[in-house]
Amino acid sequence: MTTDQGAQGRQEQEVLRRIERARGRPARLRDERITLAHGAGGKATHTLIEAVFLAAFHNPVLERLEDQAVCEAGGVRLAFTTDAYVVSPLFFPGGDIGDLAVNGTVNDLAMSGARPLYLSAGFILEEGFPVADLTRIAASMAQAATAAGVQIVTGDTKVVERGKADGCYVTTAGVGVVEHPFELGAAQARPGDVVLVSGPIGDHGTTVLVARGELGIESDLESDTAPLAGAVAALLGACGKDVRCLRDATRGGVATVLNEIARASGVAVVLDEDAVPVRPQVRGAAEILGLDPLYIACEGRMVAVVDAARSQEALEALRAHPLGRDAALVGRVVADPAPLVLCRTAFGGTRIVDVLVGDPLPRIC
Amino acid sequence: MTTDQGAQGRQEQEVLRRIERARGRPARLRDERITLAHGAGGKATHTLIEAVFLAAFHNPVLERLEDQAVCEAGGVRLAFTTDAYVVSPLFFPGGDIGDLAVNGTVNDLAMSGARPLYLSAGFILEEGFPVADLTRIAASMAQAATAAGVQIVTGDTKVVERGKADGCYVTTAGVGVVEHPFELGAAQARPGDVVLVSGPIGDHGTTVLVARGELGIESDLESDTAPLAGAVAALLGACGKDVRCLRDATRGGVATVLNEIARASGVAVVLDEDAVPVRPQVRGAAEILGLDPLYIACEGRMVAVVDAARSQEALEALRAHPLGRDAALVGRVVADPAPLVLCRTAFGGTRIVDVLVGDPLPRIC
Repeated sequence: MTTDQGAQGRQEQEVLRRIERARGRPARLRDERITLAHGAGGKATHTLIEAVFLAAFHNPVLERLEDQAVCEAGGVRLAFTTDAYVVSPLFFPGGDIGDLAVNGTVNDLAMSGARPLYLSAGFILEEGFPVADLTRIAASMAQAATAAGVQIVTGDTKVVERGKADGCYVTTAGVGVVEHPFELGAAQARPGDVVLVSGPIGDHGTTVLVARGELGIESDLESDTAPLAGAVAALLGACGKDVRCLRDATRGGVATVLNEIARASGVAVVLDEDAVPVRPQVRGAAEILGLDPLYIACEGRMVAVVDAARSQEALEALRAHPLGRDAALVGRVVADPAPLVLCRTAFGGTRIVDVLVGDPLPRIC
Repeated sequence: MTTDQGAQGRQEQEVLRRIERARGRPARLRDERITLAHGAGGKATHTLIEAVFLAAFHNPVLERLEDQAVCEAGGVRLAFTTDAYVVSPLFFPGGDIGDLAVNGTVNDLAMSGARPLYLSAGFILEEGFPVADLTRIAASMAQAATAAGVQIVTGDTKVVERGKADGCYVTTAGVGVVEHPFELGAAQARPGDVVLVSGPIGDHGTTVLVARGELGIESDLESDTAPLAGAVAALLGACGKDVRCLRDATRGGVATVLNEIARASGVAVVLDEDAVPVRPQVRGAAEILGLDPLYIACEGRMVAVVDAARSQEALEALRAHPLGRDAALVGRVVADPAPLVLCRTAFGGTRIVDVLVGDPLPRIC
């Protein structure tokens, strides 16, 4: 972003600096009890992770705070990840907790550029849960695994008493092999890069909200849950090491992912609001609910930061893949005001897009 | 076991054959709803796994039904495993859900002879759960990881609404490298092998039961939760490929583990009841509750099947390790009547030791 050197510009810069100083302070966990916000993937989740988990487990791999660990085992670079799924309802248009879990773990592996290979599945079931529902979930997991080219090779099942859980929770973990020599990560973005999204955002979160039936909205929207390893392979095949960073925009949405990248790379991101693909159904539901689609979770969309010189090839590679058909260039990486994410609105203004605060959309994954 | 050729012997053989025919039938899941028994690690768990998960995910690695998958990634033999933990109470004498989860996953890796390397941790938290309890659990996980020489490199946290879970569930997954060339597994036992246990059985399950306070028993007993990778390395160092099979005796206890080995290897196991180490407090609690210690879970004890010619070296190697100090030779592998586990009782009789049926001890891990 070029900065206005007039009085107004200086004032704006001062405000941004103050915001930045406040944000730069180490995370302090003031809560004595867990709230839904701690599971939302936004600010409270980050604080909990830093204050509790990083403080206890501190090691350089975890501290990278990527969606997957990349670590060495027997001379091979492995990607390793886990996700707990507590989505409610368990079945929703376009998917269920089963394919959501498989695709989510496959995607976390794929975002490191790894080839996903093996998955584990841990089930926590409530006494009384219908076996027919479990069978349907297992079938959906199997289908998703086949589609993603992975095998579910190990698992565990626990049962808790009636009333001690709600139905079925699934925790998947996954292992893949990183075969390319370059490092993808939130810390790799540089001024001059472009920001792409692989398709319309917010479908999954909106679908689950509508499926709960609490909103009185009807919609033909479906979850975008899908395995992104193929689209990643297409993108890396076209642009190789000029791809800086890949992140699937799940909890916290595109806004939170971009904030993570801005912070880890010490850069700013300027989004063009008009360029961000959002389906009319998602936009409509978001307006009714007072939500910003930038914060609504996707489960089959990724953000890619790519060297600007390769933006055309990157877009073409994504658009040639069925899951990237509607890929768009939505923003640019700039040096200042790091590490903020700014959005140029349709009305010509600029607003700061912070990480998600609170949890407007609990239990969407 | 040598068979009596007289009339009585023939009659006994016929009874055993009938039992065997009934047990050899494919698992049929009659239940329409999940019961606590499906999570107990015994007969109902096996049936659920076969009828739902194996039927959906079928692949040769999963079908081995070991506690871990051993699979190839980038030319390296990896061990990969997962466990969900729902123990109640979360804190108990000798441990808590945190070190239980880390040790349990480390042990599942170690039972394949793998060197455990990396762990993931997925948390499902109930809204309102005290952050201080979570911090204590994380500290306990960190300590257990350090003791076991593994790193917790990736994780995930979800939060469900108050009343939708009870406190904290932890699902760990783990990755290790299998560096030895031979295959350990439940299918490797042969007639003539001996069966060892690495220490007194039933401590963990009894401790958790007593800690619930429902029984009105007081006890100085502590959980045996511990990482067994060191003891496994000592045993493999001493006996190498003459170790056939290792299994940690968790849910379902030693009885269930031995049944799994007998079935997978097509052999029979004859246990000497007097030789099985059981602490007096465990024996006492088991008598009050009408339980057999052979079915009570351990979390730091393993069953090892070893070539009889190496039994002395195996025992010495285990006993030289702090976690195998009280290791004992408790039985022998024989050809008939496969695949049953028999127990020679203190009174000179013989009884069949089946897999666990029902769930007398819910939520012990």
